[in-house]
Amino acid sequence: MSEQNTQVKLIKRPVGEVQNSDFEVGQAPIPEPRDGEVLIKVHSLSLDPAMRGWMNEGKSYVPPVGIGEVMRALGAGQVIRSRDAKFKEGDWVSGIVGVQEYAAVPAKELTPIDPSLAPVAKYLGVLGMPGMTAYFGLLEVGQPKEGETVVISGAAGAVGQVVGQVAKLKGCKVVGIAGGPEKCRFLTEELGFDGAIDYKAEDVKAGLKRTCPDGVDVFFDNVGGDILDAVLTRLRMHARIAICGAISQYNNTTPVKGPSNYMSLLVNRARMQGLVVFDYRHQYAAAAQEMAGWMAQGKLKSKEHIVRGIEQFPEHLMMLFRGENFGKLVLQVAED
Amino acid sequence: MSEQNTQVKLIKRPVGEVQNSDFEVGQAPIPEPRDGEVLIKVHSLSLDPAMRGWMNEGKSYVPPVGIGEVMRALGAGQVIRSRDAKFKEGDWVSGIVGVQEYAAVPAKELTPIDPSLAPVAKYLGVLGMPGMTAYFGLLEVGQPKEGETVVISGAAGAVGQVVGQVAKLKGCKVVGIAGGPEKCRFLTEELGFDGAIDYKAEDVKAGLKRTCPDGVDVFFDNVGGDILDAVLTRLRMHARIAICGAISQYNNTTPVKGPSNYMSLLVNRARMQGLVVFDYRHQYAAAAQEMAGWMAQGKLKSKEHIVRGIEQFPEHLMMLFRGENFGKLVLQVAED
Repeated sequence: MSEQNTQVKLIKRPVGEVQNSDFEVGQAPIPEPRDGEVLIKVHSLSLDPAMRGWMNEGKSYVPPVGIGEVMRALGAGQVIRSRDAKFKEGDWVSGIVGVQEYAAVPAKELTPIDPSLAPVAKYLGVLGMPGMTAYFGLLEVGQPKEGETVVISGAAGAVGQVVGQVAKLKGCKVVGIAGGPEKCRFLTEELGFDGAIDYKAEDVKAGLKRTCPDGVDVFFDNVGGDILDAVLTRLRMHARIAICGAISQYNNTTPVKGPSNYMSLLVNRARMQGLVVFDYRHQYAAAAQEMAGWMAQGKLKSKEHIVRGIEQFPEHLMMLFRGENFGKLVLQVAED
Repeated sequence: MSEQNTQVKLIKRPVGEVQNSDFEVGQAPIPEPRDGEVLIKVHSLSLDPAMRGWMNEGKSYVPPVGIGEVMRALGAGQVIRSRDAKFKEGDWVSGIVGVQEYAAVPAKELTPIDPSLAPVAKYLGVLGMPGMTAYFGLLEVGQPKEGETVVISGAAGAVGQVVGQVAKLKGCKVVGIAGGPEKCRFLTEELGFDGAIDYKAEDVKAGLKRTCPDGVDVFFDNVGGDILDAVLTRLRMHARIAICGAISQYNNTTPVKGPSNYMSLLVNRARMQGLVVFDYRHQYAAAAQEMAGWMAQGKLKSKEHIVRGIEQFPEHLMMLFRGENFGKLVLQVAED
C-alpha cells in the first residue's frame, strides 16, 4: 500500500472541453476515517457525462464541485479500515469516492457490492447508477407498452445498452442510435436490438424512416442537439421522451441548442420529461434484484470499456464526449 | 340577405407574416345545403393563432388549408335553411364555417348555442374552443394543486384569461405575462390574478423573481421563444409545462427557436407536454356546464375584442401576432 494518496483536484472551471490545466494531480496523506466513516482503497472510478455538469457553476440537481476540491466521482473499492459497524475490513463497497486512490466516506453513503458475483466494473455500469438510470428512466418516465417502438440515443453507452435490452424484455421494438458500424453491429447482433442507426454514416431522420416507418412511441435521449430534433419529427401520437442527458451540448461555449421541433409535442400530444436517478433510490434494491435475475438468465448483457492512469483523468473523460468509448467507461486505479 | 357570398380564399402559402396578397376576396353564389347539412348565415368568426399553422404545408394536427380553398375558421351564426332534423331555421350554431358570409355545413359537426344567454362572441371565446383549451390544458395537462404557483403567457388573450381564472378557482397563486400596462392591470384588477409581468416593460426573468420568488409549478405557454426559456430557468421540482401554442414563432422565416434551457426539465424532474383541445371533445359538455356555472356566479369573466370587415381578414389576423388584440379577437361579419 502506497504511503500517499494520488488525488485529482478541480482548480479551474472548464470553458468548453475540459483541459488538463483545469485539474491538478497531487499527493496527499492517506486520510484517517472519522467515527461513522470507512477508509476505502479505490479500485475503479466511473467516468460519466454528468461529471462535466458538476464542474460548472450554477444550480443543478447537485451542487457544483468546489474549486480546489477533489473531483467528484462514483467508484468502488475495498474497505481497509472501518469506524462503522456496517462494514468491516475487506468488504467491497461503491459510492461517491472522488478521483483519488483512497477515500474516507461515511458508511451510510455506501452500498455493499460482491466482486465474486460480477467484475467490479459492472457495479459501476449495468449494476450501478447507469443501470438504475436506464431501468427507471425507461419504465417510469418512458412507460413503454408491449409492441411499441423505443428509440435510444447514445445506445451503445452505459445507460443506452441497458435501456434497449430492458425495452426488449418488455416486448418493444428497439432501435439504437450510435456512432460507427462496430457499435451498431454490437447493438443488433449482441444485444438483440431490432435496428441501429449509425449517425456518423446516415442521416438520422432517414435512418428513423428506415427503421421506424410507423414512428416512435418512446425516445430515451442521452444526446440532445440535432438527434433530439430529428426524433421529434418522427413522434407517434402520445409519445414520451425521457430526457436523461444531452452529451452533445455539455461542452458548448455557445448556448445549448434547444429542440427547434418541440412543437411536435403539441401536434402529437406528446410529452418530454426529465429524470434524475436519485429520485428512485428507495426502489434501487428491487430493481437491482430484477436486473441481476435477467443477467443470470443471459437476458441482460453489458460491455465495459476500462482505461487506466488516474493522472490522465481529463483525457479519459473526454473520450465520452468524442464517442470514443465503447460501453461503460471505467477508470481502474488499482491492480486487481 | 345579399344575393352573394363574400369569401376569403387562401391563394398562396404565406412566408413569414401573412399578406393581403396571400388571400383573394371574392363573391360566390350562396351554397345549397345537401342532405344532412344546414345553411348558416355567419354572424362572427373566431380569429385564432392556430390559423397561421393551418396555412402551412406539412403534417400537423389537422390537414393544411388547400390552395384555392376558403380559409378555415371557427364561427357562429344562424341556420337559414336546414336539411337535417337536428336543427331548424332560426337556430343558432357554432362550428367550422370558414371565412365567408354563408356556409353549408354538416349538421353533425355543429354545436347549438343560445345568444339569449350570452353574446355570440363569448361562444367563440370563453364558452368555445379557447375556453375548452384553457380548461383541459390547465386541469388535464398542467394538473395544478391547491397552493401551487401557475404562470401563463399570453395571459390577456382568449385562452390565457380563462386559464388564470380557473387556476384561481382551484386555489392557486396566478401570475400572468402580457404586453402593456393596460393588459396587466386588467389581469390583476379585473380578473383577480395575483401578479402580472409586462414583458414589454420588464425583463421576464426579473419579473418571475419578483412575482414568483419560490418558482413556478405550472406554466401554461401560448407564446414560446424567449418567454418559454425564461420560465424554464424558474421551474420548481416536478413542474409541468403545458404547450398550448408558440405565437412568437408562427411567422418565423428562420427555424423555430427551441427552448435552450430545456435541460431544466432534467434538473427539476419536470415535464413539458403538448395539448390539442379536440382530444377532450367527449368532455366538452361537462366542462361547459361547469364554466357556465362559474360565469353565472361572476367568478369567470371574459373580454372580447370585436373587429369588422371580412375583406380585411389578413390584417385583423395579424393583430394577434403583434399583440394588438385585448381579449378574444372576433371578426363580426353580419349585423346583430
